[in-house]
Amino acid sequence: MSQVYNFCAGPAMLPTAVMERAQAEMRNWNALQVSVMEVSHRSKEYIAMAEQAEQDLRDLLAIPDNYKVLFCQGGGRGQFAAVPLNLFGDKLEADYIITGQWAKSAAEEGKKHGKINQIDIRETAEDGSVSLTPSTKWPLNPDAAYVHYCPNETIEGIEISDIPDTGDVPLVADMSSTILSRSIDVSKFGVIYAGAQKNIGPSGLALVIVREDLLGRARQAIPSILDYQVLANSDSMYNTPPTYSWYLAGLVFQWLKEQGGIAEFAKRNEAKANLLYDYIDGSDFYQNQVDKQYRSWMNVPFQLVDESLNEAFLAESAEAGLLTLKGHRIVGGMRASIYNAMPIEGVEALVSFMQIFASKHQA
Amino acid sequence: MSQVYNFCAGPAMLPTAVMERAQAEMRNWNALQVSVMEVSHRSKEYIAMAEQAEQDLRDLLAIPDNYKVLFCQGGGRGQFAAVPLNLFGDKLEADYIITGQWAKSAAEEGKKHGKINQIDIRETAEDGSVSLTPSTKWPLNPDAAYVHYCPNETIEGIEISDIPDTGDVPLVADMSSTILSRSIDVSKFGVIYAGAQKNIGPSGLALVIVREDLLGRARQAIPSILDYQVLANSDSMYNTPPTYSWYLAGLVFQWLKEQGGIAEFAKRNEAKANLLYDYIDGSDFYQNQVDKQYRSWMNVPFQLVDESLNEAFLAESAEAGLLTLKGHRIVGGMRASIYNAMPIEGVEALVSFMQIFASKHQA
Repeated sequence: MSQVYNFCAGPAMLPTAVMERAQAEMRNWNALQVSVMEVSHRSKEYIAMAEQAEQDLRDLLAIPDNYKVLFCQGGGRGQFAAVPLNLFGDKLEADYIITGQWAKSAAEEGKKHGKINQIDIRETAEDGSVSLTPSTKWPLNPDAAYVHYCPNETIEGIEISDIPDTGDVPLVADMSSTILSRSIDVSKFGVIYAGAQKNIGPSGLALVIVREDLLGRARQAIPSILDYQVLANSDSMYNTPPTYSWYLAGLVFQWLKEQGGIAEFAKRNEAKANLLYDYIDGSDFYQNQVDKQYRSWMNVPFQLVDESLNEAFLAESAEAGLLTLKGHRIVGGMRASIYNAMPIEGVEALVSFMQIFASKHQA
Repeated sequence: MSQVYNFCAGPAMLPTAVMERAQAEMRNWNALQVSVMEVSHRSKEYIAMAEQAEQDLRDLLAIPDNYKVLFCQGGGRGQFAAVPLNLFGDKLEADYIITGQWAKSAAEEGKKHGKINQIDIRETAEDGSVSLTPSTKWPLNPDAAYVHYCPNETIEGIEISDIPDTGDVPLVADMSSTILSRSIDVSKFGVIYAGAQKNIGPSGLALVIVREDLLGRARQAIPSILDYQVLANSDSMYNTPPTYSWYLAGLVFQWLKEQGGIAEFAKRNEAKANLLYDYIDGSDFYQNQVDKQYRSWMNVPFQLVDESLNEAFLAESAEAGLLTLKGHRIVGGMRASIYNAMPIEGVEALVSFMQIFASKHQA
């Protein structure tokens, strides 16, 4: 196989070492002579693997003991429903910080279950550049059941790296496209959730990290598969979990630890992002319109100043083994998603291609 | 690898040919040089695969055009909530036929959403043998929103092979452990659903086959990921589906077609089941207490008459490469799950081992 780099926003590339191991032990896992996806989730071998995966995640993120880790089905959108159904309790309102498409979608689903205050913090200048209102100026409701925000907007490439202070109101974060990319202080959050298919593993799995005092206040009519208390009581095995996705997530966690943990990946991710943004900023052929302090390390959208060259860019980049660079249909342009599994060599190859493409097509 | 046969009730063994292909193309699917789990669910290659999988399932089960096929997350237990949330409409009651543990669990979840009439049709004789009330004698409520039943109880090994006539009341079937094992007339059902991890593919995927006129009556507060209308409108891509599980299910459907389709598997499954039940019935060392007309083709529970030999049976069978024969903890004893992927040679090997074990330990 020739070298390719896959910049898909999700389902995203997985670490090469993880995929090699998964392929090698696909039909004979743990010397059982069957696949890990063919063993009972209640077998001692599977449970040992599942527990190790949770422990590795706890180690990586330094998750305090008073937080439960849940392995769920239903993706991030499942959590858009699970959060209000679990957390409204006897409160009537919740605050949703609007930073982009994913935050808006979460708020829409939340409306089914209570009054949602949407706080749009985007500030767009006349030249089209985008910034955000700092969290100290958000008009938060002290009576809210919770404050929901999306620290990294996958589509727009906007990231909030400091953690908002919401006082006694639980802070809920959709970290689907930023979890494990840098160190975070989990103790500042009520709930962190993330669809797996960006920085954790394959699709079909969602992780929830929930502070224990928030369990047990779910609505009566909550589907049991979304009830944090039910999942916590059963170690995420209330029903058959997505066993293969859990296994692959575990391999990714192992790999992250072997490579040096989250501090190491934060360095790598910052270096990868800087390489790409610096090139874009120094070019008059490409542009990124996000305020530098809110630029995402994980998803780098960019536009060709001459958009008539978009098709040629996509065709030639694919030809060069640089896959899935098309931006989300809502915003157009290009997007390079550079999660943990993307090596710096992939970003170097992209920048190199962008330089060649620009010099070939520059007027 | 030496030959093993895996009798796990679920996650169950997958066809050897499917697993060989999945392993071979694990890191280079469709000549894309990446894994199928690393490509976007919105890419043309993935959508073509997903559509082919649906078409193959439609062909296998002769699904009429006025039924939608949905590929969902959340497993069978997710559907325990989805069914009432989607189907109650303006009705107040639903009938649940109780045949065993899974039917009971479905009824429990249903209670969150309306009045559930539990109709227990199990008839246990003094000697412990179990039969069922025939469907013509079920006391059904003509005002029920739907009638829910579980045609094959995985734990107890009880199967109802004829389709109940519920008149104008939609019939809903949890076919998790029987789907694709024999031909069915889909037009008799309002909804058929099945967790994938028994006779379809790996865990993390559930299939729903729903008659179109039942769409659009969901409760306002239904989580969108469980809303049949939302899933139907988006071709099951409202959010990122469990892409790898969908792919493997598609490989299983292809394999079923190549092998001759459902009529062929019905023959094989009947032959496998008969081989095992006939041996048990002819033995005074083993027993099965289910009325012959309600015995499952897929899950064959059996007891050693001398239960003090259970541990020895499990140890020696595992030693002989016959895996996961322990019965469910609720009923004890042994259970051999013999889904489509289990070849007749596996059942022959099991019977042969049972004969040897009996002659060795017979008083």
